[in-house]
Amino acid sequence: METKVVLDTLWVLITAFLVFFMNAGFALLETGLCQAKNAVNILAKNFIVFAVSSIAFWVIGFGLMFGDGTGFLGLGGWFLTGADNSPATGNSYSGVFSALSWTGVPLAAKFFFQLVFAGTAATIVSGAVAERIKFFSFVVFSFILVALIYPIVGHWAWGGGWLSRLGFVDFAGSTVVHTVGGWAALLGAIILGPRAGKYRNDGKIKPIPGHNMSLATLGTLILWLGWFGFNPGSTMAADPLAVSNIALKTNMAAAAGCLTAAIVSYLVLSKPDLSMILNGTLAGLVAVTAGCNAVSMFGSVCIGVIGGILVVYAVLFFDKIRVDDPVGALSVHLINGVFGTAAVGLFDLKNGLFYGGGARLLGVQLLGILAVGAFVAAMSGLAWLALKATLGIRVSAEEERDGLDLGEHGMEAYPGFVQIAPDPGMMEIR
Amino acid sequence: METKVVLDTLWVLITAFLVFFMNAGFALLETGLCQAKNAVNILAKNFIVFAVSSIAFWVIGFGLMFGDGTGFLGLGGWFLTGADNSPATGNSYSGVFSALSWTGVPLAAKFFFQLVFAGTAATIVSGAVAERIKFFSFVVFSFILVALIYPIVGHWAWGGGWLSRLGFVDFAGSTVVHTVGGWAALLGAIILGPRAGKYRNDGKIKPIPGHNMSLATLGTLILWLGWFGFNPGSTMAADPLAVSNIALKTNMAAAAGCLTAAIVSYLVLSKPDLSMILNGTLAGLVAVTAGCNAVSMFGSVCIGVIGGILVVYAVLFFDKIRVDDPVGALSVHLINGVFGTAAVGLFDLKNGLFYGGGARLLGVQLLGILAVGAFVAAMSGLAWLALKATLGIRVSAEEERDGLDLGEHGMEAYPGFVQIAPDPGMMEIR
Amino acid sequence: METKVVLDTLWVLITAFLVFFMNAGFALLETGLCQAKNAVNILAKNFIVFAVSSIAFWVIGFGLMFGDGTGFLGLGGWFLTGADNSPATGNSYSGVFSALSWTGVPLAAKFFFQLVFAGTAATIVSGAVAERIKFFSFVVFSFILVALIYPIVGHWAWGGGWLSRLGFVDFAGSTVVHTVGGWAALLGAIILGPRAGKYRNDGKIKPIPGHNMSLATLGTLILWLGWFGFNPGSTMAADPLAVSNIALKTNMAAAAGCLTAAIVSYLVLSKPDLSMILNGTLAGLVAVTAGCNAVSMFGSVCIGVIGGILVVYAVLFFDKIRVDDPVGALSVHLINGVFGTAAVGLFDLKNGLFYGGGARLLGVQLLGILAVGAFVAAMSGLAWLALKATLGIRVSAEEERDGLDLGEHGMEAYPGFVQIAPDPGMMEIR
Repeated sequence: METKVVLDTLWVLITAFLVFFMNAGFALLETGLCQAKNAVNILAKNFIVFAVSSIAFWVIGFGLMFGDGTGFLGLGGWFLTGADNSPATGNSYSGVFSALSWTGVPLAAKFFFQLVFAGTAATIVSGAVAERIKFFSFVVFSFILVALIYPIVGHWAWGGGWLSRLGFVDFAGSTVVHTVGGWAALLGAIILGPRAGKYRNDGKIKPIPGHNMSLATLGTLILWLGWFGFNPGSTMAADPLAVSNIALKTNMAAAAGCLTAAIVSYLVLSKPDLSMILNGTLAGLVAVTAGCNAVSMFGSVCIGVIGGILVVYAVLFFDKIRVDDPVGALSVHLINGVFGTAAVGLFDLKNGLFYGGGARLLGVQLLGILAVGAFVAAMSGLAWLALKATLGIRVSAEEERDGLDLGEHGMEAYPGFVQIAPDPGMMEIR
Repeated sequence: METKVVLDTLWVLITAFLVFFMNAGFALLETGLCQAKNAVNILAKNFIVFAVSSIAFWVIGFGLMFGDGTGFLGLGGWFLTGADNSPATGNSYSGVFSALSWTGVPLAAKFFFQLVFAGTAATIVSGAVAERIKFFSFVVFSFILVALIYPIVGHWAWGGGWLSRLGFVDFAGSTVVHTVGGWAALLGAIILGPRAGKYRNDGKIKPIPGHNMSLATLGTLILWLGWFGFNPGSTMAADPLAVSNIALKTNMAAAAGCLTAAIVSYLVLSKPDLSMILNGTLAGLVAVTAGCNAVSMFGSVCIGVIGGILVVYAVLFFDKIRVDDPVGALSVHLINGVFGTAAVGLFDLKNGLFYGGGARLLGVQLLGILAVGAFVAAMSGLAWLALKATLGIRVSAEEERDGLDLGEHGMEAYPGFVQIAPDPGMMEIR
Repeated sequence: METKVVLDTLWVLITAFLVFFMNAGFALLETGLCQAKNAVNILAKNFIVFAVSSIAFWVIGFGLMFGDGTGFLGLGGWFLTGADNSPATGNSYSGVFSALSWTGVPLAAKFFFQLVFAGTAATIVSGAVAERIKFFSFVVFSFILVALIYPIVGHWAWGGGWLSRLGFVDFAGSTVVHTVGGWAALLGAIILGPRAGKYRNDGKIKPIPGHNMSLATLGTLILWLGWFGFNPGSTMAADPLAVSNIALKTNMAAAAGCLTAAIVSYLVLSKPDLSMILNGTLAGLVAVTAGCNAVSMFGSVCIGVIGGILVVYAVLFFDKIRVDDPVGALSVHLINGVFGTAAVGLFDLKNGLFYGGGARLLGVQLLGILAVGAFVAAMSGLAWLALKATLGIRVSAEEERDGLDLGEHGMEAYPGFVQIAPDPGMMEIR
């Protein structure tokens, strides 16, 4: 086997392992930022979602996303079958996954790398619907998202579809992964409604603090690590200059987002809030994802700074409009996914507005953001409503009060520890 | 240095690092599934066991396993000394570790990769004997296992011994690693006896829930990640097609095991039990380990499904026969190690019964399972009994009631937190 | 791009990712070994410190350390700008970072790898000053350390400065990273003074146990994993023999340190203390860092054994002289950083005293230890005193009693759990 194929395959697999590990990051971040009485449920959701994604993407998703088809969707390659002579590339390639013929790695590596990305999109949803969603309904929604919604949008941008033909740039997935998860999460959070007692009739907002900041911090560090797979791995080739620069700029945006959110939270909330520091870092990471291969060091720092500002105000904004997002997933993934995608139109060193590249790229980026948003919001809204009308999506008020761990799973996360009893007046307040 | 040597060495080392990290996975899974009063002890066991393994395998184990010798054991290479011109391979190789001359990496890389596997076998034992074993006796048993028992069996299958000459196939160690740990664990659990109060005289079984499901879930995700080193690394070569396919099939078996255990636990126990979901995933991983390089996508999913079913019923079975395994290690590693080894005889695309390969391979697999089981059960049974007669293996009833953390280590894992007092009647019930 | 450049870049990046992950290890180890009421503060410190380091090292530090300049400091390359034709090496290199022209990887990879090392030095300080330092003052000190102090010393040893010209050997940073962090930590711990109530007037020492040994153990396992990046990555080249041997010897020293500390703590403290086992492992790792590329297997084991002994007695010593180091950072990083650097003069297979190499290398090593110690102690002492005189470095007695989490961050780490109230008499005792 040609050396380049070996090198590219090692890189793709190792970065895929890092992205896989982001499942642990998301699980711990969400668990830590929610209440102990729902920990088993959140852990189970975040754990099983990758198993669901693995099956859904194998059976349908990968074919819809990368199978040869129309500009709107792929039409072949179900169950990862069909002709394919990978790792052949370019004109030497013959098979049904032409959209991935630019990367010279075996088909199994292509699929596995794309699978860990698909799993990420589904995990994002989990945080925004936490502490009130029925376990089984979440599992079904995840299947729909990874089997149908995510792959179709992915086809548009990465599968040779209409957005890519227009020149839409989303290098590692600010739109394809993060806003897809974000829009699906937004619709879920709206249709579910807020947690009982969160928004009082007198206009006050009840803070519901997370039960374990150690887990949340570890989770975020795992996500930061995972992003060194997410962004540099998206080259799907071991290109030394590209991957080194992408890793570094990914890190600078994270650092800038972290420090900015610390400062802004100090100015706005009077204390350097740890959950804001964590989410600010993630905001920088999400925002730089679309353009990490095409911006300068200063560009990446600027993107991180803006991400860190956006996330603090977005958290306050969603609370103001009474969309209850227990972990800040919308502020991180949706808001900064949108911003990061637009930022490519501003900071891209070749075609960005700030670098004399004109406004055309920015326009295409905005078109992509809107088209993806409209499609995902509509499809996921339909899916949530269909689930609501059939299985039901929200647990009972009693179960919510006593914790989903007992109701959905019949077990507790920390049975040996004495915990503060839930607020007895919670149900009435709702 | 030849490029292939560099590539193979990077792959072997990086996958070895992932397997090393499984120590954290095992530590957290076992700690999380046991009681808080024994957490320090469990952490200490799981931590020190890799240090013990490192010394034991360096001094004796590696020589017994891979040193040139007879069909039954190796007879040289103690302390990693003796002639060896690695990374030379095949006919160019000259040295005392001929059984590893097929892989073209430096001797230090060969040893390190095999060491992290040896450490895994010892860690498996820890879970089944938890919450009642003396710390020092566990340390001594681990030394015996890694210095003597594991390497001899390993010599049979991987060191050029009699099983490998018969055509026994165990690609990454369903038998060599997982059943070896499993049989040693079974004998330990039987000879130690159940935890006090677990099995009541009236036939009822007292559930002893784990104290931290967050840790257990994180541990399982780390193990899933580690398996991307365990199985794809076992090529000990950076072969793009092989490693990509092995990684993917490893993942599909895990996903299938996860979902199957969720469904079966829902049907049998009426709730999707998180500990069953975790163990179902591990069951799929253990089961696919022997054949991950030789089965189809559908084959890997079938193996995972069967593993997910087996693990739920095995947990119930061991409780029925009153073998107390606090974390389900026997159900995961022993039962699915056996099943996975046999499954090669069924699902191997070349020689498997289901693919027209006849029953010869299946027969050899069953012979290997039996021979390894008989040898390890006998040797580890002797070791446990010898330890029982000398150092003693079980802590006192008082220490068990109050927790091994105070008794064995003089410290608590969570001293600042108010915990529910241990059941005062526990000692009488025993 | 030449294959060697690709291979070296992959190795440098992947090992850098592992070293980055050590941030999680340090965060969990320190958090676990301290009290729950300060957990948010410790997590926030350990998290933000890498963001601070990223900016500080980009703006100033990297230029001071590796920029062309004098034997004392670098004088160019601020903001990672200036000519540089990396990955060209040797005579083909032209640029302002000549001191790194020996490694053939892109500049972004060089910077990123060195950045994760710089971040480690800052993290070491955190543990020794825990549970009483003001958050903002720690952030400022970290900036000074990574922007100025660490890079100047680093220039001496790794940036072509005067120590390297004398033949000083510190392969992966026992001195450059660990003692730099250690001396800065020592001055901080002395100038801050001990935690309230730690050392009583009657000469007794109040034990202040850590709140979560699960986190501490996981943190140490992550650090052990990270060291497989730290030491083998310091080749900055994918040299199969070198990296395999370094990985293995790193592991043997860790294992030897672990077991030795277990035995010594059993002999001295009558129980195998888990925190000693963890710190013994880290002691072995720190000690072998300077010479991991140049010692034998037996040498690495000897170094680990001595490290494991030193760490136990050092912990007792620092308590005797009333320097309060909540996590043992001084015993691990300072004492064993010094020992490990000296050990190169003893165990180096070419120039070590024990191998007939004479005393010259040992003399240079001791000179380096002293020079670095004097400089870092002076500079960091000045920095701490300046901070004390301006921002203040210690929180109020009330805040210390009630926890820094409420005082510095306005939140708790585990709000749902009932905790044992802080000792009411603590403030008086002080």
